[in-house]
Amino acid sequence: MRAYRIPEWEHTAEVVDVPVPEPGPGQALVEVAGCGLCHSDFTMLGMPAEFGRALGWSIPFTLGHETAGRIAELGAGVTGFAPGDPVALVSPASCGTCAYCVRGLDASCPNAPAGRGFGRDGGLAEYVLVDDPRALLPLGGLDPRTAGPLTDAGATSYHAVRRAAPRIRPGGTAVVIGAGGLGAFAVQFLCLLTGAQVVAVDTDEARLKVAAELGAHATLVGTTEGTAAEIRALTDGHGADAVLDFVGVDATIAAGVAAVRPAGAFGLVGAASGRLQSPWYGGLPRDGEVFTFQGSGIADVQEVLRLAETGRVRNNVDLFPFAEVEAAYKALHDGTLQGRAVVTFGD
Amino acid sequence: MRAYRIPEWEHTAEVVDVPVPEPGPGQALVEVAGCGLCHSDFTMLGMPAEFGRALGWSIPFTLGHETAGRIAELGAGVTGFAPGDPVALVSPASCGTCAYCVRGLDASCPNAPAGRGFGRDGGLAEYVLVDDPRALLPLGGLDPRTAGPLTDAGATSYHAVRRAAPRIRPGGTAVVIGAGGLGAFAVQFLCLLTGAQVVAVDTDEARLKVAAELGAHATLVGTTEGTAAEIRALTDGHGADAVLDFVGVDATIAAGVAAVRPAGAFGLVGAASGRLQSPWYGGLPRDGEVFTFQGSGIADVQEVLRLAETGRVRNNVDLFPFAEVEAAYKALHDGTLQGRAVVTFGD
Amino acid sequence: MRAYRIPEWEHTAEVVDVPVPEPGPGQALVEVAGCGLCHSDFTMLGMPAEFGRALGWSIPFTLGHETAGRIAELGAGVTGFAPGDPVALVSPASCGTCAYCVRGLDASCPNAPAGRGFGRDGGLAEYVLVDDPRALLPLGGLDPRTAGPLTDAGATSYHAVRRAAPRIRPGGTAVVIGAGGLGAFAVQFLCLLTGAQVVAVDTDEARLKVAAELGAHATLVGTTEGTAAEIRALTDGHGADAVLDFVGVDATIAAGVAAVRPAGAFGLVGAASGRLQSPWYGGLPRDGEVFTFQGSGIADVQEVLRLAETGRVRNNVDLFPFAEVEAAYKALHDGTLQGRAVVTFGD
Amino acid sequence: MRAYRIPEWEHTAEVVDVPVPEPGPGQALVEVAGCGLCHSDFTMLGMPAEFGRALGWSIPFTLGHETAGRIAELGAGVTGFAPGDPVALVSPASCGTCAYCVRGLDASCPNAPAGRGFGRDGGLAEYVLVDDPRALLPLGGLDPRTAGPLTDAGATSYHAVRRAAPRIRPGGTAVVIGAGGLGAFAVQFLCLLTGAQVVAVDTDEARLKVAAELGAHATLVGTTEGTAAEIRALTDGHGADAVLDFVGVDATIAAGVAAVRPAGAFGLVGAASGRLQSPWYGGLPRDGEVFTFQGSGIADVQEVLRLAETGRVRNNVDLFPFAEVEAAYKALHDGTLQGRAVVTFGD
Repeated sequence: MRAYRIPEWEHTAEVVDVPVPEPGPGQALVEVAGCGLCHSDFTMLGMPAEFGRALGWSIPFTLGHETAGRIAELGAGVTGFAPGDPVALVSPASCGTCAYCVRGLDASCPNAPAGRGFGRDGGLAEYVLVDDPRALLPLGGLDPRTAGPLTDAGATSYHAVRRAAPRIRPGGTAVVIGAGGLGAFAVQFLCLLTGAQVVAVDTDEARLKVAAELGAHATLVGTTEGTAAEIRALTDGHGADAVLDFVGVDATIAAGVAAVRPAGAFGLVGAASGRLQSPWYGGLPRDGEVFTFQGSGIADVQEVLRLAETGRVRNNVDLFPFAEVEAAYKALHDGTLQGRAVVTFGD
Repeated sequence: MRAYRIPEWEHTAEVVDVPVPEPGPGQALVEVAGCGLCHSDFTMLGMPAEFGRALGWSIPFTLGHETAGRIAELGAGVTGFAPGDPVALVSPASCGTCAYCVRGLDASCPNAPAGRGFGRDGGLAEYVLVDDPRALLPLGGLDPRTAGPLTDAGATSYHAVRRAAPRIRPGGTAVVIGAGGLGAFAVQFLCLLTGAQVVAVDTDEARLKVAAELGAHATLVGTTEGTAAEIRALTDGHGADAVLDFVGVDATIAAGVAAVRPAGAFGLVGAASGRLQSPWYGGLPRDGEVFTFQGSGIADVQEVLRLAETGRVRNNVDLFPFAEVEAAYKALHDGTLQGRAVVTFGD
Repeated sequence: MRAYRIPEWEHTAEVVDVPVPEPGPGQALVEVAGCGLCHSDFTMLGMPAEFGRALGWSIPFTLGHETAGRIAELGAGVTGFAPGDPVALVSPASCGTCAYCVRGLDASCPNAPAGRGFGRDGGLAEYVLVDDPRALLPLGGLDPRTAGPLTDAGATSYHAVRRAAPRIRPGGTAVVIGAGGLGAFAVQFLCLLTGAQVVAVDTDEARLKVAAELGAHATLVGTTEGTAAEIRALTDGHGADAVLDFVGVDATIAAGVAAVRPAGAFGLVGAASGRLQSPWYGGLPRDGEVFTFQGSGIADVQEVLRLAETGRVRNNVDLFPFAEVEAAYKALHDGTLQGRAVVTFGD
Repeated sequence: MRAYRIPEWEHTAEVVDVPVPEPGPGQALVEVAGCGLCHSDFTMLGMPAEFGRALGWSIPFTLGHETAGRIAELGAGVTGFAPGDPVALVSPASCGTCAYCVRGLDASCPNAPAGRGFGRDGGLAEYVLVDDPRALLPLGGLDPRTAGPLTDAGATSYHAVRRAAPRIRPGGTAVVIGAGGLGAFAVQFLCLLTGAQVVAVDTDEARLKVAAELGAHATLVGTTEGTAAEIRALTDGHGADAVLDFVGVDATIAAGVAAVRPAGAFGLVGAASGRLQSPWYGGLPRDGEVFTFQGSGIADVQEVLRLAETGRVRNNVDLFPFAEVEAAYKALHDGTLQGRAVVTFGD
């Protein structure tokens, strides 16, 4: 079968021919229908060997961590599915038995860092092997060609919104900094779940236009020294109940933290290595909370799929056949996409 | 009556003779039995005028924000108390009607920054006026001469423990950095409420000895680059469920944040203006929380008084008659106290 | 001024002429613009003297506990308002200082059972006295003639939804039994805040039609032995995340409890004295929760007003001038209203 | 090997000789060191066939659902354990993949009702097969001969205390009705985790004496019409923060519910088929919660084991060699035990 693989550390990915995996006991083989592309894939291409090894990753591996498809074959002991069933895959790995996993905190599982598409074979191939029944989620009426981004871009945003939600008062205000792929989902989840005024902040006015279409009540261009004051002006001077930062540079952290009201939340999702330059005492939101995380849990993915299936959340995608996988990455890199890039198979 | 007052900005405090206040409608006059001293009093002595004014503070004002005594006289409309009743006073002011106060979040009330002993007359006087019935808490069987520190050193620590408690697993580990007045209370509350192993960290071995007597299961000397690793070694490598930092310099923040397990909490109480020098993404506890605050809420004080009254928490004090108020501050400054310094009246 | 009063226990109410109250220190006089009528008013008309006295109620008193108007006069010490300001009134009384009130649980305050319009003078008069600044809530852009029902029918429903919300999964199902005045609000709040499928159950198909217009995704007629099974059929057999019962007879409790999934919630708001006839062990929702309450808290009213002001919730009212107060009650009694009956003044 | 089995429905159990099971892929064989006996075993002996079948249980099966021992043999793919490692077993089954399991709510898993010792082979045998790695919990320094009761009597009580804990204020009051095997654990967990006054209620004064030794601050004999008033007298008239009922007859439910303060909790653990005879509206704790459940989750067992290992909770057992299994059940039946009956192997 064809697969889009990183052959060795610090190397570009390439289309190669590899054997179709065979599912052993407790495993399932999934025929991929569509797989979303993510900015983090570029990071993987440049990862130094020692860093990858420290993470416990294997090389080569097939890219792609936003995967959906149909059950092709079931290994011994896998129940609840039949060949042909449409499924989405949970990409992060987790052990299922540790203190985190048995509490529903699998997103923090310390035992299985290599996920499907990062450190082991992912969904940019005709078939992908799934070795954990918890990672197979029924799609119901959703189209497996397009559902992939719900499992990562969708679920990561959802996790952030769920973390912040207890601090967002109905009638209050929630802010999304960075209204791209993840942020656009966050705008929708905030509108759907909080009863709050939703404010989108971005340097790109086209993205802000999309955010407004998805429900954002107000938009602000750029993140400047005046952003916190602009947010306060939208909240009668009180500050926002929550700010979710999908960028994560010093400037967005500074503006976001300053815009949060006492007892509010600042959630950092963007991986851009920023920090707060001012002292924490007096500088962090008073009696509020600051949090950060990576990825999402299985329950998050379940709920996002269900919300999409019932039509409550919109998943904008730009489809590319697998033969055009490199054009798809180029469009992602160049910022010319309207929605999430998804590579499809079997067309 | 005698009162220990700051006469003007950036001036030492002094004993002066002032009139006994008269309680108007809704007010109560309390005869002070004892008032605790706090390091923050030193900060007030050095406060520049413009900073004090920006906070809405009035000058002159009597120091003392850890006050207990007996009802001397009740203004019109104050019910539920009789002259002679022993009471502790809530020192932070709050409006009682804002969105924070009606949700029990009076510690974040934005409407009344000047508290009893900081910006208006406090408890280092023979009598003190109370203008909010919510600030009068019955002492039950507690001694009003010694109860004062429960309302501030006790309640602030309690607030921190209660904030962190949902993230502390019974059988897990909680760390207190800085085992002085507040930290010693925190050790006790953690032992009483969490079922966790409690670790105290301090540069002063005498304080660590006290912490161990109060229930700390392990102690660590100093806060160095190795502290986080030492904490991890006490937790099978997993990290602490929560770290409460009562110091707040860069080094304690760095060590504390690094010692927290995923989904754990780091709470900053110490006002020493530190910050985290490393990037937040990857640097903050994964899917955990960072919080900071000042003071405590009325409910915190109520619960601390109740725990002390039922003998579940110990309040170590060093008593000084009012005539020796300056010696008491000197002992606080020089670090020669065994417990919290409390100035008593009427001996 | 004219007022609609219960002159003595077990007596019909009547329009009488009474003096305009004068606001003392800490009080405010409000000129009523509109006051909603409630089924519970009928219960008050028939209340035996000994029961009323046991509740601490005074007779005579003016009816009306859904009141909004404009500040007419402020007593000494009341700040933050000016004559003419539009306000809604919190009707339940609470002391503001007890362990419940300082934790934001004023709806459970044990110290002040007589509320505005039940046991002391309410809003069915040209003016009403307010003796607690916490009871005065600014209306912002809302019309004081129609805002009254938001404070009771709205806030009680809101309190129920907020209690149940942590157990309602986005993409799950919430059920409202009894889609009348309160239930119609509950349908809206569930749609606004939970991302769940909302099911309305009622014997009256006209009400179900309104519920559907307000956002209910499915409706069920009547409450029969088959109702629980019908709800399960709407939830893939799993049961509802939450059922809110605004009726409260044996049949609705039986159906509602049986329809809740494990770890779900059953909330009883209707006062019809029902109970569960089957054993609790095995009969109540496994590891879920059952709750009941009366009224709502100040924070609930604040949030409902804010949601209405920002257009997120609809408040259907049928207006009657005060001269037609008895016709308004008759329409309420006969069930001929389209919305909540509100009696207006000054037209 | 010897096993104590129910050979067919509605039949006494008997010691039989059966083959030692062989662990397949993903399974482990555990050599049992000790297995606790439970009152629910008597219920199983009398269970009608149609009821057992409806639960999905198989007959014959070996009794015993409080099991600890040592790893004897590991099937293919089971990692993290070595032969000889001491382990406790989670007895309730759960699928690991459903919406409950991935949220840490495995105690509500609908997919696997037959647990180890109820509906399939349990721990009253020399060896027991474990087919789910989540059910194997390392014992650390705990003795596998005596640890069994921690996994059921301990963990069920723990689950109840953790459910109620958010409603128990430090300095408040928690009540345990029924101070037997489970209740004695509940007394300890409440003392360890809540800072509350703990009150034990039982008809048996010997049990109350044990409860007092385990930390109960007050004891009440019997459950009568006066019990609720006695509890209120111990709480300044306010009522208890929480009542946990390990009996569950009408009288304990009536007394317990009546003793709960507004916003408090009533938790039903006892399976005695009682119900509340009075109307729910006005009868249930106002704005509090009522809950019930069976068993416990994996996380509960993990935490109980950890608390026992660190010496924070005491596990009273009466040991019987397997040859005396019937004498052990007789002692349990006759109420002549001091602690939990545990049958040991290999002595």
